[in-house]
Amino acid sequence: MGSINASSPQLTRSAVSAAHELIKEHIHLTPVQTNTTLSTLASTPQTAEALKGTQWEGQTPAYPKIKLFFKCENMQRIGAFKVRGAFHAVKRLIEEQGLEEVQRKGVVTHSSGNHAQGVALAARTFSIPAHIVMPTISTPSKIAGTQSQGAIVHFSGSTAQEREAVVAKIIERTGAILVPPYDHPNIMIGQGTMALEIQAQVDELVRNDPALSAYGGEKGKTLDAVITPCGGGGMLSGNAIALHNTGIKVFSAEPSFQGGDDARRGVEAGARIETVKTLTIADGLRTPLGDWTWKIISDSKYVAGLYSVTEENIKDAMRLVLERMKCFVEPSAVVGLATILYNEDFRKMVEKEAGEEGWNIGVVFSGGNTTIEAITKIFATVPEGVAKRAEGTVGKDGKKEVENVAG
Amino acid sequence: MGSINASSPQLTRSAVSAAHELIKEHIHLTPVQTNTTLSTLASTPQTAEALKGTQWEGQTPAYPKIKLFFKCENMQRIGAFKVRGAFHAVKRLIEEQGLEEVQRKGVVTHSSGNHAQGVALAARTFSIPAHIVMPTISTPSKIAGTQSQGAIVHFSGSTAQEREAVVAKIIERTGAILVPPYDHPNIMIGQGTMALEIQAQVDELVRNDPALSAYGGEKGKTLDAVITPCGGGGMLSGNAIALHNTGIKVFSAEPSFQGGDDARRGVEAGARIETVKTLTIADGLRTPLGDWTWKIISDSKYVAGLYSVTEENIKDAMRLVLERMKCFVEPSAVVGLATILYNEDFRKMVEKEAGEEGWNIGVVFSGGNTTIEAITKIFATVPEGVAKRAEGTVGKDGKKEVENVAG
Repeated sequence: MGSINASSPQLTRSAVSAAHELIKEHIHLTPVQTNTTLSTLASTPQTAEALKGTQWEGQTPAYPKIKLFFKCENMQRIGAFKVRGAFHAVKRLIEEQGLEEVQRKGVVTHSSGNHAQGVALAARTFSIPAHIVMPTISTPSKIAGTQSQGAIVHFSGSTAQEREAVVAKIIERTGAILVPPYDHPNIMIGQGTMALEIQAQVDELVRNDPALSAYGGEKGKTLDAVITPCGGGGMLSGNAIALHNTGIKVFSAEPSFQGGDDARRGVEAGARIETVKTLTIADGLRTPLGDWTWKIISDSKYVAGLYSVTEENIKDAMRLVLERMKCFVEPSAVVGLATILYNEDFRKMVEKEAGEEGWNIGVVFSGGNTTIEAITKIFATVPEGVAKRAEGTVGKDGKKEVENVAG
Repeated sequence: MGSINASSPQLTRSAVSAAHELIKEHIHLTPVQTNTTLSTLASTPQTAEALKGTQWEGQTPAYPKIKLFFKCENMQRIGAFKVRGAFHAVKRLIEEQGLEEVQRKGVVTHSSGNHAQGVALAARTFSIPAHIVMPTISTPSKIAGTQSQGAIVHFSGSTAQEREAVVAKIIERTGAILVPPYDHPNIMIGQGTMALEIQAQVDELVRNDPALSAYGGEKGKTLDAVITPCGGGGMLSGNAIALHNTGIKVFSAEPSFQGGDDARRGVEAGARIETVKTLTIADGLRTPLGDWTWKIISDSKYVAGLYSVTEENIKDAMRLVLERMKCFVEPSAVVGLATILYNEDFRKMVEKEAGEEGWNIGVVFSGGNTTIEAITKIFATVPEGVAKRAEGTVGKDGKKEVENVAG
């Protein structure tokens, strides 16, 4: 099958910097926001009650010191980070094959989600025909959304085989070039550009207001770690490449529901898990790692730790982000925050590694493409504990929350 | 009944500036955001279909040219603009009576909403006891929220008489000073401080990027109008006072449901409407104007026009703000945007007044204090048309949307 097959860039920070130069005129510099309520919550031990029924029941709750910096990629163009990789892949194609040639061939991808919109937008920007293969059962609004970006939508069945058969036919007929959703160096490097921004924005925020930092920003650096959601691993591996050897650790967050934490389990077992079948509410994270992303993510010199959270953790975190931060996110976006707030393994690790000084952690909100109806469905049956925990934080708003926006 | 009774400030722009100096260390400088999708929608004529069944059915849809600038008071402390008036009122009390005296007496108000939280926070900041009278039927989360701000909650029945009886008893027993929710010069002047920020922030945004302006910002001014929701009228009158004689027009937006547009109707009839009984989803706007706010709002030298919107208009606008802008707001917050998008009287007026050049309009998002459950309830029965119209705008995202945040 045809794909982005030209010479791949090095998987290095300087390749990420070059990618950033290439795409930055096409993407938003999304804001980094801070929130006192959430940083306070992250720095408060969970109750013994909250740990009941979890694997940490009966243990002393961790007491880490954490300041949070939220990278709002939900405010990115098309509402998700995916435009970064899409623009990078498309611009590299143009560099390598010439605009006319790429316009003649077109590009193709299969996705019913944010990647489809990203590729459609990037292609439209350069008047390149974009073929998007979507399952027949996709929601009408997603089909309409992709079409409104000027893409040609093709329908297929829902399985990987059915999708790929349609893609293959399109390639055969048109010569279109495949832009894969995550498992390609150009995509990984493109997604990693957000890490450069986070680093610079947190530096600026802390320079302007040292109180935002866990330790007043006097360590010579300001950012200690970044945590991102992990589905196919494009964003996680990209961030890990960008921050490799900077002293800033990169962590992974996944949903554990029905084995959705395939990256974590694979790394633990020492072998990539090649298929995942989960219906987690974090629907952007239902995919397994690919060969390329596995290589980076399974290397502990790149990704310092992989963690997972339950569906309830995701819902609790999502409620906090919507109702307290007033920020509209999709469920996949909050698994990083959920890990920080509710995963005791992560919290104990931070307590131990960060010590008295604490850590400043960058948390990627990956996207905001959901609907009122989808949220309604997710919260239709709210367990007691969730509602109670969320209420306990009502109104504990502090100063210095929203103005801290580094553009 | 005791109330803020000391010498009132002049109702002038310079009084608003003085108020701003007094409170600015206690409030957030909330961001002003722009959004290409919504500005484009505002500058696109409604369809004949959309006007069916409205009072404008069969008329040629207006074709105004509008650029929108959203003042995100949903990101204000306690999640709403109400802290501005509350801090101003409390600080003036301290100036007039001395901190010790105010601490001895305490403050009191009746509210189940944002004003209660605002007064509680302002009082707590200066270690002043705050008594908040809330209806027994208030939702537990609001009671918990008010208590978590350190306020003493007292319960009453739901009618104005029952509430005021409890307030009177508290004043009798403690000497507490009443901080009214809107109908007092100190409250109006305090809320008006947002207008100074909007003006400066829009200037800055347009200076940095003239493309954000309807006319490239070359008129000597950048902001043409501000539209705010109107309930009791504290915010509307405050903005009108702040922008009086600046050339920037101020407009009012109300829900029309069950006569919720009492300000508009009162101004039309030439007499204040003193009671309102509406269950509009814009629950912050269910109150009538007071004597003080009426004086300003009924004066067309202050408020240039009053408009109203339907419940469906509010829901449509709310969906756009949540799903497209990724901004979490309460229903009351979007009546200004709903007016701009759906009220043909307003749109025709802009087309006529603004002409070819168009207008830059500041739109106040007054607050974001709602819950997932409340939103679920509001959208439980979505009429066909609403869902369809919302879908039609999916993915029409442009460039330069989110980074334009003037802190």
